[in-house]
Amino acid sequence: MRNMIVASTSTLYGGGYLEYLTPFLSKRLKAASIKELLFIPFARPGGISHDDYTSKVRAVFQTMHVNVKGIHEFEDPIKAIQDAQGIFTGGGNTFQLIKMLHDLQLVEPLRKVIYQGVFYLGTSAGSNICGLNIRTTNDMPVVQPSSFKATGALAYNINPHYQDPIEGDQHMGETREQRINEFHIYNHIPVIGLREGSFIDVQGTTEILKGTLKARLFQAGKAPMEIEPETDFATLNLNH
Amino acid sequence: MRNMIVASTSTLYGGGYLEYLTPFLSKRLKAASIKELLFIPFARPGGISHDDYTSKVRAVFQTMHVNVKGIHEFEDPIKAIQDAQGIFTGGGNTFQLIKMLHDLQLVEPLRKVIYQGVFYLGTSAGSNICGLNIRTTNDMPVVQPSSFKATGALAYNINPHYQDPIEGDQHMGETREQRINEFHIYNHIPVIGLREGSFIDVQGTTEILKGTLKARLFQAGKAPMEIEPETDFATLNLNH
Repeated sequence: MRNMIVASTSTLYGGGYLEYLTPFLSKRLKAASIKELLFIPFARPGGISHDDYTSKVRAVFQTMHVNVKGIHEFEDPIKAIQDAQGIFTGGGNTFQLIKMLHDLQLVEPLRKVIYQGVFYLGTSAGSNICGLNIRTTNDMPVVQPSSFKATGALAYNINPHYQDPIEGDQHMGETREQRINEFHIYNHIPVIGLREGSFIDVQGTTEILKGTLKARLFQAGKAPMEIEPETDFATLNLNH
Repeated sequence: MRNMIVASTSTLYGGGYLEYLTPFLSKRLKAASIKELLFIPFARPGGISHDDYTSKVRAVFQTMHVNVKGIHEFEDPIKAIQDAQGIFTGGGNTFQLIKMLHDLQLVEPLRKVIYQGVFYLGTSAGSNICGLNIRTTNDMPVVQPSSFKATGALAYNINPHYQDPIEGDQHMGETREQRINEFHIYNHIPVIGLREGSFIDVQGTTEILKGTLKARLFQAGKAPMEIEPETDFATLNLNH
């Protein structure tokens, strides 16, 4: 009975924090009667402190009449997850995020409450941890986590902020597509490249692509596919 | 008595493999009387096999009258490193490269021969492993190595393929500079952003920036600095 929003980014170019998601998000929060959200600030974008990141998020959710508490404010973070009405994991650095989650032994409790139906919102790094592991993050490995294993709330990996190759680019570093192809040399997990503005609406067994953009689906040994909005990823018979 | 060339990239846009480096490189190989080079193909760019990668490299070094053997052709890779006249580690995926080096316990032997003066050429991933750890790679973490620790042949980290922010870019993923700033939230190691076409010429205690482009130096708690070609990084009194 999952109830999730798995978003490529928190913010669109020129828009406010979570602005493009707010209409959809506020409906879902209301439908689930959520008055309080547990925020996981561990990804610390730009090195922002847990307190400052939580304050930024609190201000946005106040407009939706939802109270926000940072997980770092609790003495027992496992209990905080078990007791949460809803959970939001914000973006930033995925390595720092998964390091903290493993160090505090929060990956399994998180997975458990998600499958029990506790509402979960992830943006960027917070969406990476919905997949089977963090091996398709774009982030720099600024810290070494004990494990790359993620929650497995989805049976595939996300590549957030998915970027198409830039035509005429003279830079010799790998394109995003080349990087995901390298992932498939060593892994058989499908990868969904979510462009900025796209998100996956997970309700029970359905996993619907939302937003106006297509997503790009990568499977080991297959040509990449463009996926139309409103497609249910759960019906695609993915090649695991 | 180090004797190294640490390059941002193997290939410039529109150029052949190692082409821009060849004039400088062939002089250094001749000066050190190197007739045979040990190639480390573990980074496998695009998933190329060890044999195919080694063949590609062999063809280029033949024009410099240097024979190339792949480390995977040896029964004892540690001995292969200890016996090598010179070593080249090619680019590709840094996580796969460092995983193989740790799995085969080659990091310490590699460090040892480099400090003993065995010639070392690194490009891209092969340059990442010259730093203290691989935490400033741009690569996707497609496999999980046992450790991010690298050789420490240099007392700072390299960020190869360094890219300046693209003006007017509407993508919301982090710029390279933002990523390296995040690195400095958790680490105090200086980072040298090497633009494509730049390399560091290491001879004994000197570490000279070569090529026509400036490099960008990042230190924890300091503003980034542009470094002119022909600067000796070893004289910069870096903030460790």
